[in-house]
Amino acid sequence: MSEFKPKGLVICVSGPSGVGKGTIIDELRRISPDTIHSISVTTRTPRPGEIDGVHYYFRTTEEFEQMMSRGDILEHDCYCGNYYGTPRAPLIEATEQGHDVVMDVTVPGSLAVMKNFPDAVTLFLLPPSFTELRRRLTRRGTEDQEVVERRLQKARDEIEKTRLFQYVVVNDEIQQTARKILSIVEAERCRYEQMAGIEKLIMSK
Amino acid sequence: MSEFKPKGLVICVSGPSGVGKGTIIDELRRISPDTIHSISVTTRTPRPGEIDGVHYYFRTTEEFEQMMSRGDILEHDCYCGNYYGTPRAPLIEATEQGHDVVMDVTVPGSLAVMKNFPDAVTLFLLPPSFTELRRRLTRRGTEDQEVVERRLQKARDEIEKTRLFQYVVVNDEIQQTARKILSIVEAERCRYEQMAGIEKLIMSK
Repeated sequence: MSEFKPKGLVICVSGPSGVGKGTIIDELRRISPDTIHSISVTTRTPRPGEIDGVHYYFRTTEEFEQMMSRGDILEHDCYCGNYYGTPRAPLIEATEQGHDVVMDVTVPGSLAVMKNFPDAVTLFLLPPSFTELRRRLTRRGTEDQEVVERRLQKARDEIEKTRLFQYVVVNDEIQQTARKILSIVEAERCRYEQMAGIEKLIMSK
Repeated sequence: MSEFKPKGLVICVSGPSGVGKGTIIDELRRISPDTIHSISVTTRTPRPGEIDGVHYYFRTTEEFEQMMSRGDILEHDCYCGNYYGTPRAPLIEATEQGHDVVMDVTVPGSLAVMKNFPDAVTLFLLPPSFTELRRRLTRRGTEDQEVVERRLQKARDEIEKTRLFQYVVVNDEIQQTARKILSIVEAERCRYEQMAGIEKLIMSK
């Protein structure tokens, strides 16, 4: 099917803090190296060794705000006085070239993506249980019980948003979760909207 | 997740005559023995060794027509003066118990399923090319060119219905096609509608 080049997919992986998004994204990167991972734009200063366009796109606050006002940022967040956001342009470019892009996005960020990029495939990771989420958050080394409780409350609020996502995966075991996500990507590639027009090509051959 | 028992899925596999539906269904049966394959109802006489409820549900014409009028037949066809149809009840029973059911359905039959059982996941198999479809239909032993041409015209008409299906898989190579179908099944199991309520269970654990 060398003549049929469907666009790539944008897969937005989300879930509450502590659910293991980062680990899953790393595993996906390992088992599916062709998948592109979106690079965020940030206004923070590059750390030694960080390369613009590889680790982040480094921009000034003014540039970032201009991008936002032009609608070039799909979702953003503020952290320690710096902006972090997902730029639209590299994502469009990659998908036009047929590459799939996986994004690791916060829950509020995902809601913004749903609005600003409705074609994105949205996926919510759930912990196997709330007890397990508490254990994972405690294990992180933050021993301050108050901080843990605040995060758990935030997680509770975020988990209530599960129903807004297209897919739900319980992150019980890393390999299994990654495999399920890859099945979702494969299935989405087979959706008629993604394949539209292929039947005409086939009739002509 | 032993307490969360989502319903099974109904997967309706269709495609033009000669595309290889039967072979794919056999391969699915081989690699995924847990998948239930729907048993048709027919009014034809059982052949020696055929068992009611295993190979077919054997019913009289009167019984079949009663089932149809009650809406108990999702789709049906007439062939050599006998009815063949997909009964609703065993399908509901299997999915309620959490089993996935794969159906091999003609293109007109699939359109009836979409209407009568809108929850079904619908999948269209395409040949790699029209030339290849012609080759497969010719190879079947039907040397009568007129019959082949009639089938190809029917296939052309059926392929135009591709856009009505949720998923499209080009049946290039059996194992790959079967793997894609299993990915679709896995992905559909992860859809929020299929998992609805799991977040409440997780919050309570």
